[in-house]
Amino acid sequence: MRRAIVIVGKKPKMRYVTACITLFNRGEKEVLLRARGRSISNCIDVALLLKKSFYSTLRIKNISLGCDEAELDGDKKRYVSFIEILISLN
Amino acid sequence: MRRAIVIVGKKPKMRYVTACITLFNRGEKEVLLRARGRSISNCIDVALLLKKSFYSTLRIKNISLGCDEAELDGDKKRYVSFIEILISLN
Repeated sequence: MRRAIVIVGKKPKMRYVTACITLFNRGEKEVLLRARGRSISNCIDVALLLKKSFYSTLRIKNISLGCDEAELDGDKKRYVSFIEILISLN
Repeated sequence: MRRAIVIVGKKPKMRYVTACITLFNRGEKEVLLRARGRSISNCIDVALLLKKSFYSTLRIKNISLGCDEAELDGDKKRYVSFIEILISLN
């Protein structure tokens, strides 16, 4: 099954909130929020804002953490942690 | 049961990693990592670093999200999201 994903970055939270609302309005039951590094707190804010202000029945179905390998210019490698929050309307 | 808590802030990650290692060495089986706002990504890094570099058997037992009400100077109220990661050696 194709899953709706919203990648959260550094833009204002409401952009991502709106993106999620659009997806839910199109009939999606689940949306995966994903963010890396410093955007992680933004991602959590988005999930909580959706629950608090828009969908009181929203459930945080799963949270997973991990790290991606990011290549900086040249040979340097760095690990960047990411979070994935699966939110569900059911 | 009293639970060992490490509150993760903006200091270098290794400080918090060391704090956790000290707790595990004292016999704790579980440590709760907690962080708010922008320190959240630091907190996730600490958990992953512990798993990756120190305790290969470390398990992320639970992750919870929420928001605290923080009072700024005066009457302003703001919501700050937090994360709690429960890590376990078992």
